[in-house]
Amino acid sequence: MHQDRQRILTVSVKRLLRRGATSRLKKIINKTHGADLSTLFHSLPTKDQRILFDMIDEVEQKGILFSEVDTDIFINLIDGIDPDEVVTILEAMPNDDVADLLKELPDETADGLLKRMEKEGSDEVEDLMRFEDDTAGGIMNPDFIALNQEITAREAIERIQKEFADVEMPFYLYAVDEHNKLVGVCSLRQLVVVQPQTPLKTFMATDVLSVQTHMDQEEVAKLVARYDILAVPVVDESNRLVGIVTVDDVIDIFREEATEDILKMAGVGEEFVETQSIFKSTRIRLPWLFASCLGGVFAFYVINQFEASLSRLTYLAAFIPVIMGMGGNIGTQSSTIVVRGLATGRLDIRDIWSVVGKELAIGLILGIVYGLFIGLVAQFQYNTILLALAVCLAVICSMSVAALVGSCVPMLFARLNIDPAVATGPFVTTAIDIISVYFYFSIATHFIGV
Amino acid sequence: MHQDRQRILTVSVKRLLRRGATSRLKKIINKTHGADLSTLFHSLPTKDQRILFDMIDEVEQKGILFSEVDTDIFINLIDGIDPDEVVTILEAMPNDDVADLLKELPDETADGLLKRMEKEGSDEVEDLMRFEDDTAGGIMNPDFIALNQEITAREAIERIQKEFADVEMPFYLYAVDEHNKLVGVCSLRQLVVVQPQTPLKTFMATDVLSVQTHMDQEEVAKLVARYDILAVPVVDESNRLVGIVTVDDVIDIFREEATEDILKMAGVGEEFVETQSIFKSTRIRLPWLFASCLGGVFAFYVINQFEASLSRLTYLAAFIPVIMGMGGNIGTQSSTIVVRGLATGRLDIRDIWSVVGKELAIGLILGIVYGLFIGLVAQFQYNTILLALAVCLAVICSMSVAALVGSCVPMLFARLNIDPAVATGPFVTTAIDIISVYFYFSIATHFIGV
Repeated sequence: MHQDRQRILTVSVKRLLRRGATSRLKKIINKTHGADLSTLFHSLPTKDQRILFDMIDEVEQKGILFSEVDTDIFINLIDGIDPDEVVTILEAMPNDDVADLLKELPDETADGLLKRMEKEGSDEVEDLMRFEDDTAGGIMNPDFIALNQEITAREAIERIQKEFADVEMPFYLYAVDEHNKLVGVCSLRQLVVVQPQTPLKTFMATDVLSVQTHMDQEEVAKLVARYDILAVPVVDESNRLVGIVTVDDVIDIFREEATEDILKMAGVGEEFVETQSIFKSTRIRLPWLFASCLGGVFAFYVINQFEASLSRLTYLAAFIPVIMGMGGNIGTQSSTIVVRGLATGRLDIRDIWSVVGKELAIGLILGIVYGLFIGLVAQFQYNTILLALAVCLAVICSMSVAALVGSCVPMLFARLNIDPAVATGPFVTTAIDIISVYFYFSIATHFIGV
Repeated sequence: MHQDRQRILTVSVKRLLRRGATSRLKKIINKTHGADLSTLFHSLPTKDQRILFDMIDEVEQKGILFSEVDTDIFINLIDGIDPDEVVTILEAMPNDDVADLLKELPDETADGLLKRMEKEGSDEVEDLMRFEDDTAGGIMNPDFIALNQEITAREAIERIQKEFADVEMPFYLYAVDEHNKLVGVCSLRQLVVVQPQTPLKTFMATDVLSVQTHMDQEEVAKLVARYDILAVPVVDESNRLVGIVTVDDVIDIFREEATEDILKMAGVGEEFVETQSIFKSTRIRLPWLFASCLGGVFAFYVINQFEASLSRLTYLAAFIPVIMGMGGNIGTQSSTIVVRGLATGRLDIRDIWSVVGKELAIGLILGIVYGLFIGLVAQFQYNTILLALAVCLAVICSMSVAALVGSCVPMLFARLNIDPAVATGPFVTTAIDIISVYFYFSIATHFIGV
C-alpha cells in the first residue's frame, strides 16, 4: 500500500518534470513528507534533484531533506547552492543533525560553513562533532529540559512553557544540581499532579538511569528497549547532563545494527550494497569471497594428500559434498545463534563454556542422527560395511567439530572485542570445510586401510 | 556494565535464598525493575520463583512480571496462585498485555479467568484476543486520547485531565466524528498554543496516517520508523479508531523481526533456541538440516554418474570443495542482500528483473576473477591446460548461477507471499551445491573428453 503511493509519486513527478509543469510540481513537492521526498530524490538525476529542491518553500523542509538523503546526494545538492542559503538551512535544523551532516563533508567545506554560522549554534555543532558516530555522544540530541532541583513544580511549569517550548521530544524533566550534574528525573505529568509549591527534589526519582557520552550506541539502544523508556540522559565524565537519546533514534540504531550484523555474517561488508552500482558492489564483495577461495584451494591440497586412497576408491569423492554440507550448515546454525544471542543480550560472553558445551552436545546428537542416515545410504549403495562406518564417523566428527568451531569463534572474538558477526561468515564456514574434508579422508583411509 | 549489575543481583538473591534471609530479599525484590526481575526469574528454579513472587508488594509490579517473563514461567507462576489473586493482578494490567498473556494459555484456563474478571475489562480483552498476534490489531494499545472534533481546545484540555489521566503514552490527541471515525490529529502542545475557544477541527491535521487492524506488524513498524512518529492510530474497516501502536512496541517488533530473519536464514527455525534445553534445541534444528542432507545425498548420486571420469582423473575430486564453496558463498551474499533489502524496504519485489540482472552481472564478474585464479592453481599443479580451462569455466558457471538462484528465489518467494528469509537458508545453498557439482563434472568430462 505504502510502496504503491511512493511509486505513484515518483511516476507523476517524472512525468511533470518532462512536461515542465512547474506549478503542479511545486504543489506536490510542498505537501510531500520529507521521508517520501528523499526516496523520490534517490530515483532522479542530479539536475532534476536541484530543480525540485529549489521549489521547496520552507527552509525547515529543506533541512529535513538534507538529513534524509544519502551523503552523495546531499553533497551534490549543496554544490549547486549559494553557501549563504546552505547556512540558513543548517541554522533551521537541529544541531545534532547539522553535526552529522558536516562530519560527512571534507574538512575545509565543513569549516567554511561553520564560520558562516552564528557563533552560538556553530559552537554546539563543533562540540557534537567531536563524538564518535556510533556512541551515545554521537547520536544524542542536545535539546532537553533540565532545571535546578531546588525550584518548585509551579516555577518548573512556567519555565518549561517559556524556555523549552521548542524542545523536540519533551518526555521528561531532568533535575540538576548547581554544577549541572544530573540528580533526578520526573515526568511532565507528575509536575501537574503535585502541589504547585513542592520543590522538584522532594518528588523526583533519584535513581536515574543515564549513559556516558562514549557508550556504544548499541548498548544505549538495549537499555532504552529493556526499560521501555522514551529517552535516556547522556552525561559526561563528571556526570554533567549534555544530551538525551530518544526512542526514535533507538529504532534507527536497531535497524542499522541488525542489517550490519546480517550483512557481515553473509560476508557482504557492512554497508547495504544493493543500491550501489554493479562495479562498486562487486568491489565490496570481492575480498569477502577471497577467504572462501583460499580455503577451497587449501582443501584442494588436503584432498591431494589422499590421492592414493582416492585413485583406488574413487567413490570416496562422491561423499565430499554431503560431508561438507552437513558441517557447513550446522556450523552456520551455531555461529548464528551465538552472534544473535550476544547482539540481543540473551547470551553473555562469560557463559562461553556452557554455550560451547551445549553446542557440542547438540552437534554430537545431530551428527549421530545424520551420520547413521548417510552411512545407511553408503551401505545401500556399495555394500561395504567399513566404508559405511567411515562415512558415518566422518559425519559425526564433522558436525561436532563444526558446532564447536561455530560457537567458539564468535565467543572468542567477542571476548577480544572483535565484532563476532565478522567471524561468522566466510571465515568459519571455510575453516569447517577444510576440517571436514581432512577428517573424512583420514578416517576413510584408516578404516579401509588403503 | 549493565550485565555486571544483573549478575550481582542474581548472585546475591541466590545467596539470600539459601540463607532464607526473607526481609533482605523482600527489600531487594521490591526495588528491582520488572525487566531485571524477569531476567533473574529465568535463572531460578520454579520453587524459588514462587517464593520471590509472593514477596512482591505491589500488584502492578506482579503484572509487569507476568508480561516480561517467558510463557512457561508465567504458566508455572499462576499454577501456584489462587485464581482470584491472578484476576486481581490481570485487572491491574493494561488490557492489551492481558490479551497477549491469555492467548498463550489453554482455552479453558483463559475462559475461566475471563469469567472471573469484571465485565468491562474482560469484554475489551476478548475483543483484543480476536486479532492475529503479528498484526496492528494484535499489538495495538486500546488506551488512547480521542475526542470529538467539534469541541474546543479548552474543553479538550479539561477532558484530558479528567478522563485520560492514566493513558500510558499520551503523545497525540485524535479527533473523531460523531460515528467515532478518525478525522484528524493534533499534538498536545498545539492545544495549549491555540486560542482556548478554537474548535479542534479548525487546527487539527486532517491527513492522518493510520493503519488497519489486519496490517502486518512489520509494515506498521516501518511506517512509524519512516515518518518518525511516536504513535500510529489503528482503525477498523469503517475507519473507526480502535487503538494505537506506540513507538516502544515498534522497537520490539524490529528486534523480533530481525532476529527471526537471521535465524530463518541460518536454518534454525524462528524462535531463539539458545535459552532452551539441549533436546528441545536439537529437535528444532534437526529438520532444517534435513534439506541439506537430502541435497548432499543427491549430489552424491550426481557425482556417481561421473564415476568413469573420476576413476581416470582422480584429481578432479580435489576441486569439489573450492567450486562448491565459491558458489555457496556468493549465493549467500546474493540472497542475504535481497532478503534484507526486502525487509528494510530498500528493494521492491517489482524490481525483480533489475535486481536479478544486476546480481547475475556481479556473479559473472566475480566468477571470471576467481575462475582465472583457481584455473591458474590447477595449471600450476597439473600443467594440463584443458583441466585448467575446465576448472575456470566451472567456477564462472557455478558463481553466476549461484548469484542468479540466490537472488531469484527470495524474490519469487516474496511474490508468492512466502517469507523470503525461509528460502534463503539451507534450501538455496543446497540447490547451489548440486548445480555447481553437476556443472563442474559436465564441463570437465566434456573438455578433457573422458
